[in-house]
Amino acid sequence: MRTLLKNGTVINVFTGEEEQAQVLMEDDRIVGVGDYNEQDADETQDVSGRYICPGFIDGHIHIESTMLTPGEFARAALPHGTTSVMADPHEIANVCGAAGIRYMLEASEGIPMTVYIMLPSCVPATGFDESGAVLTAEDLEPFYSHPRVLGLAEVMDYPGVIARDREIMKKIRAAIRHGRTVNGHAPLLSGRELDCYIAAGIGDDHECSSVQEAKERIRKGQRVMIRQGTAAPNLRDLLPLLEEPWAHRCLLVSDDKHAADLLNNGHIDAAIRMAAQDGRNPITAIRMATLWAAECFGLCGVGAIAPGYTADILVLDDLHQVRIRHVYQKGRMIVENGRMHPWNPPAVCPDLEKNVRSSFHINVLSERDFYMKQSGKQKCHVIRLVKHQLITEDWITDIDFDKKGGVDLNRDILKIAVAERHKNTGHKCIGFISGTGMKRGAAASSIAHDSHNLIIIGTNEADMAAAGNRVREMGGGCAAVADGNILAELPLPVSGLMSEASAPAVAEQNQKLWESERLLGVPGDVELFMLMAFTSLPVIPHLKITTQGLVDVDRQRIVPLCE
Amino acid sequence: MRTLLKNGTVINVFTGEEEQAQVLMEDDRIVGVGDYNEQDADETQDVSGRYICPGFIDGHIHIESTMLTPGEFARAALPHGTTSVMADPHEIANVCGAAGIRYMLEASEGIPMTVYIMLPSCVPATGFDESGAVLTAEDLEPFYSHPRVLGLAEVMDYPGVIARDREIMKKIRAAIRHGRTVNGHAPLLSGRELDCYIAAGIGDDHECSSVQEAKERIRKGQRVMIRQGTAAPNLRDLLPLLEEPWAHRCLLVSDDKHAADLLNNGHIDAAIRMAAQDGRNPITAIRMATLWAAECFGLCGVGAIAPGYTADILVLDDLHQVRIRHVYQKGRMIVENGRMHPWNPPAVCPDLEKNVRSSFHINVLSERDFYMKQSGKQKCHVIRLVKHQLITEDWITDIDFDKKGGVDLNRDILKIAVAERHKNTGHKCIGFISGTGMKRGAAASSIAHDSHNLIIIGTNEADMAAAGNRVREMGGGCAAVADGNILAELPLPVSGLMSEASAPAVAEQNQKLWESERLLGVPGDVELFMLMAFTSLPVIPHLKITTQGLVDVDRQRIVPLCE
Repeated sequence: MRTLLKNGTVINVFTGEEEQAQVLMEDDRIVGVGDYNEQDADETQDVSGRYICPGFIDGHIHIESTMLTPGEFARAALPHGTTSVMADPHEIANVCGAAGIRYMLEASEGIPMTVYIMLPSCVPATGFDESGAVLTAEDLEPFYSHPRVLGLAEVMDYPGVIARDREIMKKIRAAIRHGRTVNGHAPLLSGRELDCYIAAGIGDDHECSSVQEAKERIRKGQRVMIRQGTAAPNLRDLLPLLEEPWAHRCLLVSDDKHAADLLNNGHIDAAIRMAAQDGRNPITAIRMATLWAAECFGLCGVGAIAPGYTADILVLDDLHQVRIRHVYQKGRMIVENGRMHPWNPPAVCPDLEKNVRSSFHINVLSERDFYMKQSGKQKCHVIRLVKHQLITEDWITDIDFDKKGGVDLNRDILKIAVAERHKNTGHKCIGFISGTGMKRGAAASSIAHDSHNLIIIGTNEADMAAAGNRVREMGGGCAAVADGNILAELPLPVSGLMSEASAPAVAEQNQKLWESERLLGVPGDVELFMLMAFTSLPVIPHLKITTQGLVDVDRQRIVPLCE
Repeated sequence: MRTLLKNGTVINVFTGEEEQAQVLMEDDRIVGVGDYNEQDADETQDVSGRYICPGFIDGHIHIESTMLTPGEFARAALPHGTTSVMADPHEIANVCGAAGIRYMLEASEGIPMTVYIMLPSCVPATGFDESGAVLTAEDLEPFYSHPRVLGLAEVMDYPGVIARDREIMKKIRAAIRHGRTVNGHAPLLSGRELDCYIAAGIGDDHECSSVQEAKERIRKGQRVMIRQGTAAPNLRDLLPLLEEPWAHRCLLVSDDKHAADLLNNGHIDAAIRMAAQDGRNPITAIRMATLWAAECFGLCGVGAIAPGYTADILVLDDLHQVRIRHVYQKGRMIVENGRMHPWNPPAVCPDLEKNVRSSFHINVLSERDFYMKQSGKQKCHVIRLVKHQLITEDWITDIDFDKKGGVDLNRDILKIAVAERHKNTGHKCIGFISGTGMKRGAAASSIAHDSHNLIIIGTNEADMAAAGNRVREMGGGCAAVADGNILAELPLPVSGLMSEASAPAVAEQNQKLWESERLLGVPGDVELFMLMAFTSLPVIPHLKITTQGLVDVDRQRIVPLCE
């Protein structure tokens, strides 16, 4: 089957030129760019006045962060021109281990988007994380034979790399031995430590938040993934990288993207649009999102409109607004005039499906589970949130355990609990948190990076138990409760991280969840559930909470609640 | 062992910048670029006022064309800054088959230059070629497991590729299946045919002789290897490619380089020098010769001064003259102040050594072997050389066989013969050639692309036999004979293509050979032995001679000598 796109302007990502050329596809490949006509094709599409551009590639995303299954994610992202993603199933792997990776591979098999997989390098993320699985280098090894596995995902354990820790180096060396890429994750690392990290074989980083940081990495041979995620939109600060000599060493990635953001604002197209609106050359942004992304992963034959390349092709109405009219994936028109052609996600093998859907193992919670043994006034470590940031402060203040168990709404001090939920070990830690502004009820969630235990913040123990139990009943998800009533909920039955619903449905449920935050008294500029999700991640400074206790991140040690 | 290069200016091939930075190596790797000092190293080299640049990579060379073994080639090229080459052992493979490839791998094992091997794709080059071996896709397969084998070498059989010929496509698909590169060779191919050729998976080309030709290829996704060989110096015509958006898709290669040219003018350094002298940015040329060359072959960790990269490092006195002071190869100083540290080439396994040194199998020749059966005057096809080109004309003219067997010095018509020499089949063809200007004697050579049979041009049959016999006695080589006396000779015992001697010795012998051309009456602007070497290559238009007969290259068929 030969299809001709005629009268369009081809975006040449090798040279940055706009070319008047006909594009001929045969089955899933581009076979000609130049002087072709109707006689050469079985089917011709006139795209006069439009642009022909390679499909966009997101070089780093955790699909789980959209709360969508790979199929539903693709359904939402394809109309935005995304035809390939490099997905790191770090979240589901922390819950389900190798089965989680297998699930993501099976659930994306044959869908009209190429979902490449980068193997999660840090499961669990730290020694404090009581995750659902441990993935060793040996566990990852079999995945390298899968044609969609491209390497080792973000190596967050940079202290381990710098110390040449045996286990993390084994994983890195395996990827290199297989001729694959190793993605980095080392925010603010610089100088000698950065040299040492890079020299281990780490090819890129997506954590750069300043041009200076990015330039050092490019000079040292890394590629920089410019992240424009929902919670971490770095593109504005990094726009100067869209000029040479930096641009050709950069990619555009999303890392974490919420369903509503994806639907309302777009995906990689949104980043290109923002660059164009800032006066940057949109073709440079397109090159970052196509050929240069493919090059970062050593992918051949992907990311360009050229003979022999995969026919992942976008027809754009314009370059500055990046309005996407048609999307061809592997030569098949999947989005036509902005509307998706129907397709079904693949069937995942039942055992695997069952495995990822029965990830929640914890006993029913009661009010008593959230009482603390302390009494009287004591100096305690309180996790204090920092507005619009994921870092927290270690606030040492007096807590009067005899008054409402220490909860003090006047000082905005609430209870926070993390309960192990993978293997029903009963491990649990209760502490205090300040900065949410919550005035009543409780919120619970099974999204709690990176080990995704059950995390609960509340003004009282009864609502904490009720919220936690609701999440437990759903087999994972989020719930907001006040006075024993469920204000909003978002079921995430797939490993406690992903919904079964479509992107619009998830976005709507999420919207209701956000609205319920206001009912709990949380001010509009605080995203409670999002912040909760990072409160148990002991790699972001300064004080976090895990099932093993409060963690002083800077010193990498457990601290007692009371001084 | 840690070595520090301090106070130098680093050429950053990622950005094109010059950076003041210290470079720290540990064993064979660069481990740091930045703020380091003596305390970090076991040994410090002050390179104040000098440049630190990655070792040069020649992306496409036939080492056999230097007439040097890999070890002697390295000895000659290292002082010119070449630390890696992608060698296509096409010539020796046409003589010795897979044993020839194995020999090149063994003879370059452990030498202070990384000799990557591209597997010869066309052995024999054409159906007319009676070469010493036939290499099928199955024969090439085992080589892909060798760490220095990077892919499939120049696919000269472009008509076969365009026709999707089964055997050539099998070779191409094997390389792609192994995730390796496929080099192209398709001079002047354009438009639809070029699309078809590229779509088969051909990643680059080194045959571009015009900017226009090169631009079409870059736009279609190929990389362009700018060839600056001894006989085909294309760089001057292609200098405009040293500007963006073309430069980053280009490499500098030599393809065929003679020992004297290598010694006197240099290698890749000479190409960079020429670019600089033309007013181009030498750093752009250096980027082509380092990082971008590595990228073309999907090589990671080679071609840059950056953490984790192989410590192939040049210290240059200046950028415009490209004066090379020191060369580090895998962290070891191998050239110091322009002088090579001593090292020995590896021992090749005796069976293999014997194999490549006993490639000449042909009976002793006699005058009678060069007589022709025709008599009287007949219209004959004569190979007419075109000055300074490898193409020939098909000149149809009267030959009087009764006068000196057809030789006519007034009209510059001599005899040319090609005799099979690999398997002693006795196959032989005698024809006529015009354009050498030879007035007496004969010249014989075992370098006769691509099948490397014994080729002889002469004014009389006795000298033709004498010259041929001298080459036979040497087990391969070149010889010039007049009146039964040997005027000059160049023994090439290694497969009839390579000498055992050093580059200076080979250059000197070659010089004597060139001088002997004058003794034969050949004018100074004709390179007899070089032209001879291409007279039996039936892929260059228009009339060539093989053991099977005269070949009309345009029609790809054997033509009888007489009309």
